[in-house]
Amino acid sequence: MKFGRFLFGEKVFWGRVEGDEIAVLKIPPQKGLIESGEVFNINEVKILPPVVPTKIVGVGLNYRKHAEEMGKPLPAEPLIFLKPSTAVIGPEDNIILPPVSERVDYEGELGVVIKKACKNVAVEEASECIMGFTCFNDVTARDLQAKDVQYTRAKGFDTFAPVGPFIETDINPDEVEIKTYLNGEIRQHSSTADMIFNVYQLVSFISGVMTLLPGDVIATGTPPGVGKLSPGDRVSIEIDGIGTLSNYVVAVK
Amino acid sequence: MKFGRFLFGEKVFWGRVEGDEIAVLKIPPQKGLIESGEVFNINEVKILPPVVPTKIVGVGLNYRKHAEEMGKPLPAEPLIFLKPSTAVIGPEDNIILPPVSERVDYEGELGVVIKKACKNVAVEEASECIMGFTCFNDVTARDLQAKDVQYTRAKGFDTFAPVGPFIETDINPDEVEIKTYLNGEIRQHSSTADMIFNVYQLVSFISGVMTLLPGDVIATGTPPGVGKLSPGDRVSIEIDGIGTLSNYVVAVK
Repeated sequence: MKFGRFLFGEKVFWGRVEGDEIAVLKIPPQKGLIESGEVFNINEVKILPPVVPTKIVGVGLNYRKHAEEMGKPLPAEPLIFLKPSTAVIGPEDNIILPPVSERVDYEGELGVVIKKACKNVAVEEASECIMGFTCFNDVTARDLQAKDVQYTRAKGFDTFAPVGPFIETDINPDEVEIKTYLNGEIRQHSSTADMIFNVYQLVSFISGVMTLLPGDVIATGTPPGVGKLSPGDRVSIEIDGIGTLSNYVVAVK
Repeated sequence: MKFGRFLFGEKVFWGRVEGDEIAVLKIPPQKGLIESGEVFNINEVKILPPVVPTKIVGVGLNYRKHAEEMGKPLPAEPLIFLKPSTAVIGPEDNIILPPVSERVDYEGELGVVIKKACKNVAVEEASECIMGFTCFNDVTARDLQAKDVQYTRAKGFDTFAPVGPFIETDINPDEVEIKTYLNGEIRQHSSTADMIFNVYQLVSFISGVMTLLPGDVIATGTPPGVGKLSPGDRVSIEIDGIGTLSNYVVAVK
């Protein structure tokens, strides 16, 4: 099933998506599937980010080919970092390039959306903590990442966490195709089968450090092919079964 | 004035603290000062963390003497990192040492509590974004910090962000004494006058990256004298005018 968050007039609501129809939910889908009976057409609403995370946990260098491409050894355990919730934007919202950076990159990723509070979860039980999967763009100021060493500033600017359009519950995250398009040209094309740590290992590892909460997002790392964003660009992350997350890029006013 | 968050039975409430008396507030103090008329004695309530942050932004290497001690040049701009909100604990809550680390350190710090949403704030206007100040312990797994390079895991474990006991609105953050005690022995003793970037510069810099939200905390860096925590230790951060934040240390069960 596909879930999303929507805006109609001033009303914000969760919905179950089927084709062009949105069945309104009375409560967030993590808490249960109670439909109100109201139905919207997707063309009459704004699609909001399908998550309201307390935190976004990113994972560095999690695709074998990307590690090879960078000439780096495969990491022995996941390398994690945080992006603030204030960076979240939804489909069709603008990625704003900050004037302090001269090189901001897209990074197309599979996002894992957490279903319930979980701490110290075993790999075998990790699927119970997952609500579903979404597209994520781990936008990164590459020059500041190198300068600061810590990733926080480089990955923490407002608008640097596009997410959406929907949460899909029924994909196989161990083998799903992920593509990034820049102005219609394909730039990243990989399968999550190339991940060093799969989503269940990531949930287990991260929950061994910090309690994961409903709506939290794990950005599972990017495949090879990252590249620069410029004002006017349109960047799209497409994952089979989930859909496409598209954003325009603008310079700060 | 001093504000705090408290638990009495199952009731969680904000209050204004004066001596041993807590005047109950109807709404969070960031939003206004409306007292309900109810008064508690501080000995009949549990003191909760005085913040419910969406994020905690830490600052690395922000005391001159600490930078000298480490043989490092003074940073040209603040080095920021994030701690997740799931790490927050209050006074007298236990700091839990994770088995994966063999060296967990205390870091006594002045915490800045944000009053209202702020983005791109000038240094001269930063005081308007600040609700007040509190004690903060930036607990850090020193071995994992060195191993990971990224600070997220080392500083992100549950219970690694003790904060409190109160938010004080009326100290001068440019010149306040900060002390850390380990089992009653003084280990850190400095003044915020030794900070490289003062709290207004930090609010301005960080708000230029990410929107700060009410209740967010900036942990402003630690002076020299950091050291190891062991099970059974009692660690206390004392800041003039705010009070003392004390926690026991336990090994994970």
